[in-house]
Amino acid sequence: MEQVLIDGSWVSANAVDGYQAINPRLDEALEREFPVSSWDDCDRALSAALRASSRLETTEPEQIANFLVRYANYLSENAAVICQTAAEETALPLSPRLIDVEMPRTVDQLLQAADCARSESWRQTTIDHDAGIASCRGSVGPVLIFGPNNFPLAFNAISGSDFASAIAAGNPVIARGHPSHPGTTKLLAEHAARAASDAGLPSGTVQLIYGMCPEDGLRMVQDPRTAAIGFTGSRRAGMMLKTAADEVGKPIYLEMSSVNPVFILPTALNARGSSIAEALASSITMGAGQFCTCPNLFVLPAGSDAERFLRSVAAQLTANPSGSLLSKQVLSHLQESVAALLTAGAESVCGGVPMSETVNAFENTLLRVASDTFCAAAGRLQTEAFGPVSLAVLVSDHSGWQQIAQRLDGTLTASFYADAPEDDDLYSEIYNLMRRKSGRIINDKMPTGVTVSPAMNHGGPFPATGHPGFTAVGLPAAIQRFTKLDCYDNVPTARLPQCIRHRRDHEPYTADSSECSEV
Amino acid sequence: MEQVLIDGSWVSANAVDGYQAINPRLDEALEREFPVSSWDDCDRALSAALRASSRLETTEPEQIANFLVRYANYLSENAAVICQTAAEETALPLSPRLIDVEMPRTVDQLLQAADCARSESWRQTTIDHDAGIASCRGSVGPVLIFGPNNFPLAFNAISGSDFASAIAAGNPVIARGHPSHPGTTKLLAEHAARAASDAGLPSGTVQLIYGMCPEDGLRMVQDPRTAAIGFTGSRRAGMMLKTAADEVGKPIYLEMSSVNPVFILPTALNARGSSIAEALASSITMGAGQFCTCPNLFVLPAGSDAERFLRSVAAQLTANPSGSLLSKQVLSHLQESVAALLTAGAESVCGGVPMSETVNAFENTLLRVASDTFCAAAGRLQTEAFGPVSLAVLVSDHSGWQQIAQRLDGTLTASFYADAPEDDDLYSEIYNLMRRKSGRIINDKMPTGVTVSPAMNHGGPFPATGHPGFTAVGLPAAIQRFTKLDCYDNVPTARLPQCIRHRRDHEPYTADSSECSEV
Repeated sequence: MEQVLIDGSWVSANAVDGYQAINPRLDEALEREFPVSSWDDCDRALSAALRASSRLETTEPEQIANFLVRYANYLSENAAVICQTAAEETALPLSPRLIDVEMPRTVDQLLQAADCARSESWRQTTIDHDAGIASCRGSVGPVLIFGPNNFPLAFNAISGSDFASAIAAGNPVIARGHPSHPGTTKLLAEHAARAASDAGLPSGTVQLIYGMCPEDGLRMVQDPRTAAIGFTGSRRAGMMLKTAADEVGKPIYLEMSSVNPVFILPTALNARGSSIAEALASSITMGAGQFCTCPNLFVLPAGSDAERFLRSVAAQLTANPSGSLLSKQVLSHLQESVAALLTAGAESVCGGVPMSETVNAFENTLLRVASDTFCAAAGRLQTEAFGPVSLAVLVSDHSGWQQIAQRLDGTLTASFYADAPEDDDLYSEIYNLMRRKSGRIINDKMPTGVTVSPAMNHGGPFPATGHPGFTAVGLPAAIQRFTKLDCYDNVPTARLPQCIRHRRDHEPYTADSSECSEV
Repeated sequence: MEQVLIDGSWVSANAVDGYQAINPRLDEALEREFPVSSWDDCDRALSAALRASSRLETTEPEQIANFLVRYANYLSENAAVICQTAAEETALPLSPRLIDVEMPRTVDQLLQAADCARSESWRQTTIDHDAGIASCRGSVGPVLIFGPNNFPLAFNAISGSDFASAIAAGNPVIARGHPSHPGTTKLLAEHAARAASDAGLPSGTVQLIYGMCPEDGLRMVQDPRTAAIGFTGSRRAGMMLKTAADEVGKPIYLEMSSVNPVFILPTALNARGSSIAEALASSITMGAGQFCTCPNLFVLPAGSDAERFLRSVAAQLTANPSGSLLSKQVLSHLQESVAALLTAGAESVCGGVPMSETVNAFENTLLRVASDTFCAAAGRLQTEAFGPVSLAVLVSDHSGWQQIAQRLDGTLTASFYADAPEDDDLYSEIYNLMRRKSGRIINDKMPTGVTVSPAMNHGGPFPATGHPGFTAVGLPAAIQRFTKLDCYDNVPTARLPQCIRHRRDHEPYTADSSECSEV
């Protein structure tokens, strides 16, 4: 049985159960066994995180930055072994996906977080000299992170965006590794632990548990030692954690499900349907559709252009068969979702069943529905389908566009293919409805690219996430989630945090000593 | 029966019930009757707000600023009548409290919001030229505001900080006036409606309902047309709204209860106990203790200095009898709270019962408890006591300070009286625990002053509020709550919002037209 990382040491888990990762391409269990920890492990990790949290208060930003840089370097140096393990556990292609794209992105994200930690750009220091008040963002405390199955590196609970964001603000992290790729997570954690020790960070800064009973997960969320939670995954699991966190008023940042609608407007469809069809088919099948920004729904005007477009998309989906999904569970959930969509009124254009020749794979699937039918069952026709599946909604009259947009749930992205000036009025009508429902408005691109940029929003209104004001990708913005607002009123210099004292050197901060005044 | 303000007109309510405000000084019902609206009124207001919300998208910031300035001016011109009504309905002193302090603060807050609306300083525009991505904050949509009983002007749902913040970001507001001062709210709403009409704002931008059944309140919170909720009031009511909002993943900003601990350290107590006692007594009795920042708990070292201090506080509390509370309900809740504190182990030093000579008044009350007793029943000894009541916690050994701090709930403020260098080590120990639990760290001042400053945090961890990252006072920071993060990826200039286009004039924004790339 593999060991867990608690309080700076690899120790035997107090396990209530164990599990093996499965190679989804072969449907075979991999050799090593990973523990499902008892509450005892969770409890020890929480106490160690709380101790680390206090010590991190007085840790220099430079030291946190050093950790992140060292960790990034270890990952670069050991990329081949880590990506090999990830490929085995997830069936994601080693190249280009894991080694050429996801690992460099992960390393870059850690380095960007190091820059933010060093510059403290996330602090948002505000000083009111006249009033003698200063505020800044400060660490929130121990952060519990639940990583997803679909990005074993860039969103891994111990190396991804949530991790990098939480650490940059001086918070310890308890990572709950995803059971679909524990071997990858273990390798990452070994490098993280080594880098944390090199950098002299408190021993409980980076911890790893491979799993716990669902009730212990909820108990950890509600435990007073946990300050905030990050979660990326399914709506069902996310909502359980959200309910637990909400009950005790704890910040939880969720990235759940999103259909990422693509609106293809009449003139654009007519003028460049063929290239849009190519982009769409490629976006649907990227990572076997297991992207949170997969375009699971697109809207286009009914007619001969649309029929030609659908034939083209279907031909490309059929010609480029999907690989194995991340797990047998992903496959069975996908089958259930497609069945639900069909029951709700969608019709199959191509695909729709598991592949016979490939293990744990589902045929690339195109479904279609008329706008009236969509509007009549919009909730059920937005059922989360995590995999290479997309639903075309065909609009037969002008009012249909708005009716569809009105019925869409909150989503990470809304993409538009619209040609100026012919499509401009319709663009405005739909955009005016979709801006409030989407985190990111995209033109002439599919949603599956999420650049790590300070301007990125990988977020959006519920149920895409739990709050429309935060992003999970893009630094320093994503750090915001794992901070609290700290205010210092009439506090003398020697007792102010460094980030405010440093500002003082330039602009004198005057603590006024007046006693309380009404209002 | 008074009329409600829906979609720009004063109209007869579709009422299910009616109520009269009570003059709490006389315990007499005031003449006018105000409606409790049916769902029909709520539904019409929500639809009008949604329509206004769309129109506000294309309203110039200058026009919103004009509204706020005109409204502020109308309030200044009509301050005497409004404050007279507020004094009658709330028993708060006309002068200085209402006319000299709260009204000018309200006017100033509206003018500051006008500046923010005009400058769009709340937008936080971020442009990544290389990636062709830009983001900014945008309006969130219709905001439902529940105002409190204790600040009939500065936190009124139709004139206070939540209102000004929501409007500044281009959101329509449905105000639910507090039933303890409906006449005041009506006067404010008349000026707001006139200013909105003068400024040519969409008709549903400012609406007022005097009350609805609790189930209709919860239904409004969950209605898809509501985008966000602001609430200031009791923990009980706040938690009901929070549960409703959380179920549907809707942002809700709550300001609930807070004990606002004051730590008086040994050297400071010895050196200046007498002036601290004076400041404390004055802070406890301010507004008859009906401040969200009232110091309901203070901690000091047991011994002869403490006994002298408590005698001094008690003498001042007894010598300056409290006035009438805001309502009979406030009085009865306060009686229950004091009874609960006594049952949990607190002992009475002075006060503790309703006043015989003044209607709806409670004696200024000082309670005391030993630190061991406090630690054994810390939850019950932090029972919300909204009124002129404070609990002294006497620490008999050094470890007691940390044990108390560890057991305190999230709070708006934590105040310290600590003399350098003697009290510095103890200050650090307590501060290290309290920073995470408090929105504002105060030195040598009582918590009852909340300056409207960009650096202010009137917020704090649960249960003081619902999220430790937001403030309810201080602009532009408070506006943040009523925005969402909007991102524009590869969007051509003509389709970008003005705030990003304006930035373009200075720094070219390049929308890159590359198609989707993996990750």
